[in-house]
Amino acid sequence: MAKLTIRIDLSATAAIGPGKVRLLELIDETGSISAAARAMNMSYRRAWLLVDDLNHIFKGEVVTTRPGGGVRSGAQLTAFGRRLAQRYREMETETHGVLAKHLRALNGAMTTPRPSSSKMRKSLARTD
Amino acid sequence: MAKLTIRIDLSATAAIGPGKVRLLELIDETGSISAAARAMNMSYRRAWLLVDDLNHIFKGEVVTTRPGGGVRSGAQLTAFGRRLAQRYREMETETHGVLAKHLRALNGAMTTPRPSSSKMRKSLARTD
Repeated sequence: MAKLTIRIDLSATAAIGPGKVRLLELIDETGSISAAARAMNMSYRRAWLLVDDLNHIFKGEVVTTRPGGGVRSGAQLTAFGRRLAQRYREMETETHGVLAKHLRALNGAMTTPRPSSSKMRKSLARTD
Repeated sequence: MAKLTIRIDLSATAAIGPGKVRLLELIDETGSISAAARAMNMSYRRAWLLVDDLNHIFKGEVVTTRPGGGVRSGAQLTAFGRRLAQRYREMETETHGVLAKHLRALNGAMTTPRPSSSKMRKSLARTD
């Protein structure tokens, strides 16, 4: 199955794509850059640098951090950061919608691994 | 300026993106894999492997080659290959159309490059 990915290059060095957006979502879920990095098998340093890039490219901060070891330490997605991740997901959905016919055509043109029997019946029933 | 890129993963190993599509367009223009590779600062071997990937993933060939040193030797984009490159460009255009409002919003949220002195002032004025 053809799978679509969109990437938005914001500058020569910073881009938003599925990886960075997933990182933001995981920071939102875990409240921690290191926990989010672990969940993506990414080093803390790399995750921190990605967040730092985003924090500098936008007027508003994307992630704020609270140093210290207390219960209120950790990282937090800002309202802007949450909107950014959400916007990317909306962009994905809208792109899939408008490109559906192309993706179907590409899938149809590919030499695909044999479908399972029920899939095959469905495929045989199609008239396109 | 935010710049959008779409990539279509066709399998675990083969994808179509701006680089591969440009390679196909250059093969069409030059009639040669090596000339197309040179124009992209890519090794002939790498270009050949990318073409070979595409030729295997689709039912129809994307590029055909004629060996030998004569005037009719070289590489040619098939009608299917030409349609594939064209389709990718259509996908780009349609995606830009549907995502225009998001790209405008992202551009508006970005810090624009400034001359160094004003950047410094801005940085000094920050209170965080």
